[in-house]
Amino acid sequence: MPVETIDRARHELDAEASRVSAEVDDFFARLLAPTGDGREPLYEAMRHAAIGGGKRLRPLLTTAAAQLFAIDRERALRVGCAIEAIHVYSLIHDDLPCMDDADLRRGKPTVHKVYGEAEAVLAGDSLHALAFEILAHEATHSDPWVRSDLVLELARAAGPSGMAGGQMMDLVAEGRELDLPAITRLQQLKTGALIEYAVEAACIMVRLMPDARTPYRGYARNIGLAFQIADDLIDHSGDETAAGKRTGKDEQAGKATFVSLLGPDRARQQARVLVNQAIEHLASHGEEADMLRAIARFAIERDH
Amino acid sequence: MPVETIDRARHELDAEASRVSAEVDDFFARLLAPTGDGREPLYEAMRHAAIGGGKRLRPLLTTAAAQLFAIDRERALRVGCAIEAIHVYSLIHDDLPCMDDADLRRGKPTVHKVYGEAEAVLAGDSLHALAFEILAHEATHSDPWVRSDLVLELARAAGPSGMAGGQMMDLVAEGRELDLPAITRLQQLKTGALIEYAVEAACIMVRLMPDARTPYRGYARNIGLAFQIADDLIDHSGDETAAGKRTGKDEQAGKATFVSLLGPDRARQQARVLVNQAIEHLASHGEEADMLRAIARFAIERDH
Repeated sequence: MPVETIDRARHELDAEASRVSAEVDDFFARLLAPTGDGREPLYEAMRHAAIGGGKRLRPLLTTAAAQLFAIDRERALRVGCAIEAIHVYSLIHDDLPCMDDADLRRGKPTVHKVYGEAEAVLAGDSLHALAFEILAHEATHSDPWVRSDLVLELARAAGPSGMAGGQMMDLVAEGRELDLPAITRLQQLKTGALIEYAVEAACIMVRLMPDARTPYRGYARNIGLAFQIADDLIDHSGDETAAGKRTGKDEQAGKATFVSLLGPDRARQQARVLVNQAIEHLASHGEEADMLRAIARFAIERDH
Repeated sequence: MPVETIDRARHELDAEASRVSAEVDDFFARLLAPTGDGREPLYEAMRHAAIGGGKRLRPLLTTAAAQLFAIDRERALRVGCAIEAIHVYSLIHDDLPCMDDADLRRGKPTVHKVYGEAEAVLAGDSLHALAFEILAHEATHSDPWVRSDLVLELARAAGPSGMAGGQMMDLVAEGRELDLPAITRLQQLKTGALIEYAVEAACIMVRLMPDARTPYRGYARNIGLAFQIADDLIDHSGDETAAGKRTGKDEQAGKATFVSLLGPDRARQQARVLVNQAIEHLASHGEEADMLRAIARFAIERDH
């Protein structure tokens, strides 16, 4: 591909990522407007966690996947914000003293550091419920079958068969020797399930049956693993500015990662293979898939 | 009402409550069957909290309200179990050291005491997601509009406009002087919203529009407050066997309750007024409302 084409694709991705970030901030600012009653500390804690910061990768994936099927952008963004609400709730709970005991997240102090632990538990729980309220609302889609299916698949991706199950596997893994298949399975649940849902949601919105969703889920599964490798490389490199949080935690905790198992060079190579496979899944599409291709190509380069 | 009629109604309520409890246990035993992988500690923690114990008031209300409209019992029970999953998750999180720091719940050690704090956070989060997975599944209702509306209203009842918002108000209230309207508002969110939903869910299942749901929500709102007064009376009386948890906590924490504001006698009288109002809301119904009437009449007598 000519250098100018690559530069233009990267430029368009950056512009779209900025636009989605601003729209997500705006959505949460409206959803979490001050209440003026005793619940206000809860809303303040939610705003702290949900507004400003983060790459907004999941809403970006949903709006990019929506372009494949010419889905109304406003609706795709609502779905992206529901997924982001789940992601943010999981970060708040993950950062609690009894979990990762983190004091820094997305370049800011964590919720429990600013508002207290009980408030952090409740802020996470509240964002969790709000995610499903957003999806089940008529503004997300006029077809109730779509709304119901969006809820069903998000609940599966977030719950014990998905993200929460992966977090448990991660807890159990501490101090044990995991091999590559075990790490892959753990990450597919812990972070992969929600990333996969971010793309599948667009398929649900145009009523694609599960069989027809396969290539899009394949794309998402590949980039989910590629992103995890990129995260592991950042953690390994110790660049806390890029990470927005403390790095080197996995190695200190003796946790196996893709980088500890493969070494940084082979891990980086593996990420490239996954990206190429992801792009191949989009072969039947023309330029309407360019944004998804750009996300695959550039989003793993954060550690370079 | 003749004594024999009262005795028979009480006997039928006890039999139905036992039946619902067994069905709820059975449902969760199937839903939370051992996984045989690294997620097993999570499932064990969920089974500990969700199976065996508790009055199962919310599923009992949903199945009783389902009788009003001749709704399929199996489906009403699924909805009741989704509500119970939300209730159980909230108890797990409420009992955490950073919240109420409780070591006893439903006569058993709390989840974090047995499995650890991180596991308790994840078990709560998992039951939260499962509640929405249950509702959005086709087995709950064949009409996707019903499934979507069940999800929407449960998310509202559980989230920051309902239960989680009430828990925040409760945190803020510690050490402050709340008056009767403020306590009423707090309890309507913290425990009332979910109890109201347990009855409203049956209305949604027969596609009653919001206006037509008013008397049933009124019934639920009245008994929700009556139950809270009954709970406060148990806490005040110090009967830990009846409570299944430590009592006297509210008074120690200097929290205002209906009993501390009204005194036990006037509180008991107020509960009776609320029960009578609840029953009046069912005046248009015949014997198909007898179970809801019995719940109102007898469920506040737990402290006698």
